[in-house]
Amino acid sequence: MNNLNKYLNYWKKRVNSALKRYLASSDNLSEVIYKAIRYAVFPGGKRFRPILTIASAEICGIDPSKVLPTACAVELIHSYSLVHDDLPSMDNDDYRRNKPSVHRKFNEGMAILTGDALLTKAFEFIAENANIAGISDEKIVEIIKIVARASGADGMVGGQVADTFMINKPGATKTYTSRFVNYVHSHKTGALIEASILAGAVLSGGSREEINALKNYGERIGFAFQIADDMFDVKKDRVNYSDIYGTKKSKRDTNRLIDEAKKSLEIFGSKKEILSLLADYVVTRKN
Amino acid sequence: MNNLNKYLNYWKKRVNSALKRYLASSDNLSEVIYKAIRYAVFPGGKRFRPILTIASAEICGIDPSKVLPTACAVELIHSYSLVHDDLPSMDNDDYRRNKPSVHRKFNEGMAILTGDALLTKAFEFIAENANIAGISDEKIVEIIKIVARASGADGMVGGQVADTFMINKPGATKTYTSRFVNYVHSHKTGALIEASILAGAVLSGGSREEINALKNYGERIGFAFQIADDMFDVKKDRVNYSDIYGTKKSKRDTNRLIDEAKKSLEIFGSKKEILSLLADYVVTRKN
Repeated sequence: MNNLNKYLNYWKKRVNSALKRYLASSDNLSEVIYKAIRYAVFPGGKRFRPILTIASAEICGIDPSKVLPTACAVELIHSYSLVHDDLPSMDNDDYRRNKPSVHRKFNEGMAILTGDALLTKAFEFIAENANIAGISDEKIVEIIKIVARASGADGMVGGQVADTFMINKPGATKTYTSRFVNYVHSHKTGALIEASILAGAVLSGGSREEINALKNYGERIGFAFQIADDMFDVKKDRVNYSDIYGTKKSKRDTNRLIDEAKKSLEIFGSKKEILSLLADYVVTRKN
Repeated sequence: MNNLNKYLNYWKKRVNSALKRYLASSDNLSEVIYKAIRYAVFPGGKRFRPILTIASAEICGIDPSKVLPTACAVELIHSYSLVHDDLPSMDNDDYRRNKPSVHRKFNEGMAILTGDALLTKAFEFIAENANIAGISDEKIVEIIKIVARASGADGMVGGQVADTFMINKPGATKTYTSRFVNYVHSHKTGALIEASILAGAVLSGGSREEINALKNYGERIGFAFQIADDMFDVKKDRVNYSDIYGTKKSKRDTNRLIDEAKKSLEIFGSKKEILSLLADYVVTRKN
């Protein structure tokens, strides 16, 4: 894991310094919202999603600094989702990463607006990525479609709605229940992880074959990520994968998904190391 | 006003039917969020912002049907802002256009997620506009920057933060107060109105001179729109333009702004009719 740790640390720093640069306000009246934005974004977590974008761009043969604005964009989308998920009318969490959540530190309305600003800024960042040499407008438009679909009603927001407000019907058939849980998984967490990877592959001009390989990789680690989260989750106030299938099958399934994800990387030969280690990291990161 | 009414009715119908087509869900689990999205968007109001995009594209000489996805996108951004503004932690409005606001009809969490989905979908719509012949990816990227800046921390969200949470300091100097109110006006309402107009001008390939003329036009009607709103506003629970300057100066200022807006249209010759009537409409629409 030494190579991976070095990689994670190096790019976490690069992502953080880019975010710091991009998230400065230009006047003292807008400083109020920028302050809340930075509170939500820093110090932040592992910057896992932007690092996926970076590693995916790199494996397709581009200097990954060229995709930093898009990498930061997927992190902003992740941050906005946490700010809104923590709200009293959603998960009602008072703490996030050992500090008061945004609505506790500021207030509820400010937390809603902070999430809105983060989400909006994500699309501005992606559009700004077009200013970097070698990144075409055509690819930026494609990424905006990919990221918007993965984040909105057909992706993360859809998954969150199902997870939070569509209580699994009591007495529902196992077929319905498992379809429901699969929907939540693939939408709530998987979609943005997959899009983060695709963004790197598309921006770097990866071939059809490379993009497909990374799409398969992304689907699998996204799914494994959520199953692992469910197993780590001590609260268990909702029906989740490990409730339905048990811990044993959950572990077996994540291992299978990670193996499949790593197999999709074979076309990249020796360049696959980092993404391969990142796949393992998805399940080992917490326990 | 007959020509304008015909124009407004015709394009309102076209916008509504495009929105209906674009806002259908593709599967029964995501139908839950799409239902809330459609509740927020229909029947809707005058569709003023998308019609500005359309009229601005037309005056620059393009078939305005070609900008329908972007016109619908600015309406979604307007809709999302209403859904979030109505929330209990913001303006706490139980009704919107004579029906229960989204959080009253569904619940607070659903209203937050509905706004999030609308905002995300707006950027998807703009990106999709690139599929229409004659609309280049380069212009789409430019529009995404314009619309994101106008909607986020440096635009509408920034204005909403100031309006809702930055109470004008008691005893503040008149200079501070008027700077504050100008900031709220230009950001909260003006920015999206201006961006709606710019979007049409840029997408239709308007010349630098045409784009500048429409930018001036947009700035002025955006500002006039908010002053007019302040005069119509019976609640008056916040310091606004007519509190500071009085109704007389407010009326004089809106009239001046509308005159200036119409003057900027002169380079368009006889093609200016609709936008010119729309400028008058900004102040006559309610009283």
